[in-house]
Amino acid sequence: MTSPNVLHITSRDNPVLQRLRKLAADANAYRKLGSIWLEGDHLARAALARAYPLSLAVVTESAYAEAPLRDLADAAPRVLVVPEALFKTISGLESPARIGFEVPYQAGQDLTPGLDSVVLDRLQDAGNVGTILRNAGALGFKQILALKGTAALWSPKVLRAGMGAHFGLRLVEGLLPEDLDRLGVPLVATSSHAQQQLHQLRLPEPCAWVMGHEGQGVQPALMQRCALTVGIPQPGGEESLNVGSAAAICLYESARQRLTSA
Amino acid sequence: MTSPNVLHITSRDNPVLQRLRKLAADANAYRKLGSIWLEGDHLARAALARAYPLSLAVVTESAYAEAPLRDLADAAPRVLVVPEALFKTISGLESPARIGFEVPYQAGQDLTPGLDSVVLDRLQDAGNVGTILRNAGALGFKQILALKGTAALWSPKVLRAGMGAHFGLRLVEGLLPEDLDRLGVPLVATSSHAQQQLHQLRLPEPCAWVMGHEGQGVQPALMQRCALTVGIPQPGGEESLNVGSAAAICLYESARQRLTSA
Repeated sequence: MTSPNVLHITSRDNPVLQRLRKLAADANAYRKLGSIWLEGDHLARAALARAYPLSLAVVTESAYAEAPLRDLADAAPRVLVVPEALFKTISGLESPARIGFEVPYQAGQDLTPGLDSVVLDRLQDAGNVGTILRNAGALGFKQILALKGTAALWSPKVLRAGMGAHFGLRLVEGLLPEDLDRLGVPLVATSSHAQQQLHQLRLPEPCAWVMGHEGQGVQPALMQRCALTVGIPQPGGEESLNVGSAAAICLYESARQRLTSA
Repeated sequence: MTSPNVLHITSRDNPVLQRLRKLAADANAYRKLGSIWLEGDHLARAALARAYPLSLAVVTESAYAEAPLRDLADAAPRVLVVPEALFKTISGLESPARIGFEVPYQAGQDLTPGLDSVVLDRLQDAGNVGTILRNAGALGFKQILALKGTAALWSPKVLRAGMGAHFGLRLVEGLLPEDLDRLGVPLVATSSHAQQQLHQLRLPEPCAWVMGHEGQGVQPALMQRCALTVGIPQPGGEESLNVGSAAAICLYESARQRLTSA
């Protein structure tokens, strides 16, 4: 590893810090600025584990004095060492981390046909989106296809809830329902009106699970493209599940069927 | 239905509004004040559907002019009609609702032996706790047993994430691990070191699923009381699931096994 270029910064007005502040505060800024803000060591380690490039580290003086965090910061070609108070002006967290990274955003990814996928139809809540990415990563679904209107996948909040799952998935944003015709994998949606329940039928493999808007559900143009709709059994008879839990159950059931038939 | 006592309030300093402000702002205030703040019509309708008593409604002038919300407010014996700006001083929400209720808090509930249950071991995040209550309500687990140190079950944030599930469940708080010896139902925990995986074994019925602290997992005094530990299959090999998703999967698998063996 070559030594990084280390700079000590004390000015709030440093243009790099100004850019990072925008990335941390604005969920959509990465699209315009072309880079992503990763706060905390966990996300950076997940990125490194997948050979995702880190372009820049920002680290507090005290953190840079600790060998594990110093080694992590030095994995980036440029390191900005800042006073704690200055780091706080960047952080989007109530309890700011002491290290963060800028990584390049790779725009214009297209979907990969044939892959097990999760389709996000205009999901609004960043926590839900991040949870679903994490579920997908754990349960073996390799591709996330976000329709136009879904919370920005690389926003700090989605990254936080995703806990590093982003770096093991193919992520495609800004899709229209008709784009999914190129996927070549049956779309499966949940519906409380479905005749068949999740545990009663053999799920297709590969498949693409469709998760709909928290209030409105799946839009008609997408629903009509679904090969299958299934209900999630809810013997308790209470409220429907939130979309993160519904996704966990659907992806688990797909995984379970594959494991038990193997 | 008898007519409620309706008062128009314009003073910020009204002592009832001051009390409600505390209930809305402080997650633990219900224990001291003996009542709970329900914001929004959805939670109140869920309470009414379970014959849970509403003691007081607070409603904005504009909402009280709309028949459905007026009827809902009038289900309480006392109604305070307030200007929108005054309602906002109570609300804990970024987008305040236009109606809220005070309901009595029934302290000192004890656990009911023999019931399907979910044990919450010091869960910190109110969203996770509410999500698990919602999962339990949907998937047929009737009792929530919260160990000391778990986020307050009747706090506004847990209520919001629970989406009304509270009113269909038995909720017990402040328990110690040894209190669970009286449950008389096998405790089942998830563990990444478990030899058997969730989909590979017959789960006990009834059972009590144990969900542990987001960072530390299940405490030793509780783990040693578990009859069974199981792993959740994660063929994706990524990060572990968050506790809300893990609970969804475990409760679903219990429900699925019961439905398919019936």
